Amino acid sequence: MNNLLPSRREVLLSSGGVLVAGSLKGTVDALSQEVTAAKNPHKDLMFRTTDPRNGEPELTKLVNSWQTPTELFYVRSHAPNPEIEVDQFRLSVEGLVRRPGTFSMADLMKMPSHLTTATLTCAGNRRSEYNSKEYQNVPKVSGVQWEAGTIGNATWEGCQLAAILKRVEVLENAKHVWFEGLDQIQKNSSIIGFGGSIPLEKALVDNGPGAPLLAHQMNGQPLTADHGFPLRMVVPGYIGARSVKWLGKIVVSDRPSPNHYVANAYKIVTKTDPLDWAESGPIYRFPINAAICTPKSGSRLSAGAIELTGYALPTGRSHSQIKDLMISADGGRGWTRGKLIGKKQDFCWQLWTANVQVNSKTTELLLRATDSSGGLMPARIPWNAKGYLRNSWYRLPVEVS
Amino acid sequence: MNNLLPSRREVLLSSGGVLVAGSLKGTVDALSQEVTAAKNPHKDLMFRTTDPRNGEPELTKLVNSWQTPTELFYVRSHAPNPEIEVDQFRLSVEGLVRRPGTFSMADLMKMPSHLTTATLTCAGNRRSEYNSKEYQNVPKVSGVQWEAGTIGNATWEGCQLAAILKRVEVLENAKHVWFEGLDQIQKNSSIIGFGGSIPLEKALVDNGPGAPLLAHQMNGQPLTADHGFPLRMVVPGYIGARSVKWLGKIVVSDRPSPNHYVANAYKIVTKTDPLDWAESGPIYRFPINAAICTPKSGSRLSAGAIELTGYALPTGRSHSQIKDLMISADGGRGWTRGKLIGKKQDFCWQLWTANVQVNSKTTELLLRATDSSGGLMPARIPWNAKGYLRNSWYRLPVEVS
Repeated sequence: MNNLLPSRREVLLSSGGVLVAGSLKGTVDALSQEVTAAKNPHKDLMFRTTDPRNGEPELTKLVNSWQTPTELFYVRSHAPNPEIEVDQFRLSVEGLVRRPGTFSMADLMKMPSHLTTATLTCAGNRRSEYNSKEYQNVPKVSGVQWEAGTIGNATWEGCQLAAILKRVEVLENAKHVWFEGLDQIQKNSSIIGFGGSIPLEKALVDNGPGAPLLAHQMNGQPLTADHGFPLRMVVPGYIGARSVKWLGKIVVSDRPSPNHYVANAYKIVTKTDPLDWAESGPIYRFPINAAICTPKSGSRLSAGAIELTGYALPTGRSHSQIKDLMISADGGRGWTRGKLIGKKQDFCWQLWTANVQVNSKTTELLLRATDSSGGLMPARIPWNAKGYLRNSWYRLPVEVS
Repeated sequence: MNNLLPSRREVLLSSGGVLVAGSLKGTVDALSQEVTAAKNPHKDLMFRTTDPRNGEPELTKLVNSWQTPTELFYVRSHAPNPEIEVDQFRLSVEGLVRRPGTFSMADLMKMPSHLTTATLTCAGNRRSEYNSKEYQNVPKVSGVQWEAGTIGNATWEGCQLAAILKRVEVLENAKHVWFEGLDQIQKNSSIIGFGGSIPLEKALVDNGPGAPLLAHQMNGQPLTADHGFPLRMVVPGYIGARSVKWLGKIVVSDRPSPNHYVANAYKIVTKTDPLDWAESGPIYRFPINAAICTPKSGSRLSAGAIELTGYALPTGRSHSQIKDLMISADGGRGWTRGKLIGKKQDFCWQLWTANVQVNSKTTELLLRATDSSGGLMPARIPWNAKGYLRNSWYRLPVEVS
């Protein structure tokens, strides 16, 4: 990917999304003109690490709207944001294709444009809960200690991956499509780009909201540097790691990518021995999940009726919708049904409210949900070494006086 | 595999394991001499289907001994038992190896012999429970309607797969090892052998009870035809489907086998569309599971203390042992700890007993277990279209007077 590294600085977007200078033509102009000049458009996030940048919003803010504002949309990066010159940018598409080629941003923006609303969520969402007292006898889970905020629901605009694949003519024996980012991650003794991989069947979806996009717009604006400027994958229904940011290369293959972030991370493993990694396949779809966003964890409440709000995400499949959303204030004996509010749309989260009675015996509120494709949040889930896919009942500690 | 089909009938073992005639030499003699002449050595099984043969034992009998007698060991087949002439038999080993070759039974029996006790269990064990009232709004799960008896713990003798792979010299780019059976399964418009596939890392395990074997002996006797005579894989810790019977071919590859039973079956899928299959990897390890074997389902009991027995299987990993085994007679409010009895051995089930108080309100007994590698039996699990890996709490309906 060295040919894609910055060589000129006519148009340069720093990690904060700042337009330093511009000499763009045609439709690409529009892309750059709209870029916000804010130094740090994600100042409202709580950054768990700043190098690389990893931040999530406060849950109370996150739940304010069905469509997540860009500045409240979590940021998950593995290296500093790469500085990419738009006019030098070329997406390479290669591998098991009849006509390998490169695409400039102008090429991509000439292709039929699609607008999709889809929720992205990190596989490590709620990871910090794996280090709770429930798992006292197992090793501490390292990695970014996410709470329940690495989830967001945005609109994405770009061309369909299926259209690009049609253009390059996928060969008969293709089975998987790899994505490689232009970021430069120090991994062991080498530098790699963040890699993703999805089955060809998903890559070829070309109708409905489940179709993967090569997105250059988020919520009607060019991507911020934190979110992958100038181009990122958006794979609705899959864990965020497959929606590779700063997309520089697509490879069509007969097998999943050997990139570290496909072969040796983002898998459910108990131990870190080679057998465990070999036995576990890559995670693609996200499972059902849900969280209580208001009141805050540890809130002091008065006995009586209280109002809760939160989000629920159905399993990442077509036609999967939240069905039952239940809250318990007495440790799971009695359950109150939550009310689903706002839009109900495939591959998107579902906001909800609930009115629940609490009393002086209430020490935590429990939340569980099911969806129409058979997904359910279990009461407990097995520990896993990397702390992924935490989707057991959400537990919110409260004090009631 | 056509070269392995019966062409002579000097030594012929029919589906009942009957020795029709013999002219064997060397150590292979011993193999045939010991073959039991019983017409149907599995007459104690409850056959769910007889063509192909699919039977499981009554749970009350199964739990009588830690080592499962061959005649009580479940039979899971996809086609009639193939008739294989021992002296014509050749195992072919090919693919990404430096020295592909064939092995006669005599060749295999000259290799260092290993004796391993390991539990095999069908991925469809407890499948019939998916058709209980818990899952009223989802499609009925088809396939053999197994109860909790497709599990057995036997001793296996043969050479290690790792030794064979060392002999043929696996090439650098190898990642998976495929197994093909000599059975002939009608699948769509063609005839295929039952196929399995395991990661190379597992195939190369050459110490401890987790090492895969090419077994020709079960419980000190040659395999019965139902269990794969003359040769089968035994892959400790993996679902039974990977322990391919009537083994005829081993292929070393850079990817999992494309055989129907790896690519299009034995996966956790909700729907049967192509995307679902592409997104789900092959199941290898079995998860923790457990069942109550006595008393029988629906028993009439007297109020007071009752004695339960059953099995518990820890997750199919090294050093994974059953930890907590709990029974509830009151719908999950109170739990009584079971007592682990008999041998505790890696890759083997654990028998247990429990003394539980029941009263006139008791309508079912609940069983859950955890293991030392983090495995737990959840209260409920999502439905899946093929009815695999049912390991939620075991529920035994009873009547108490």
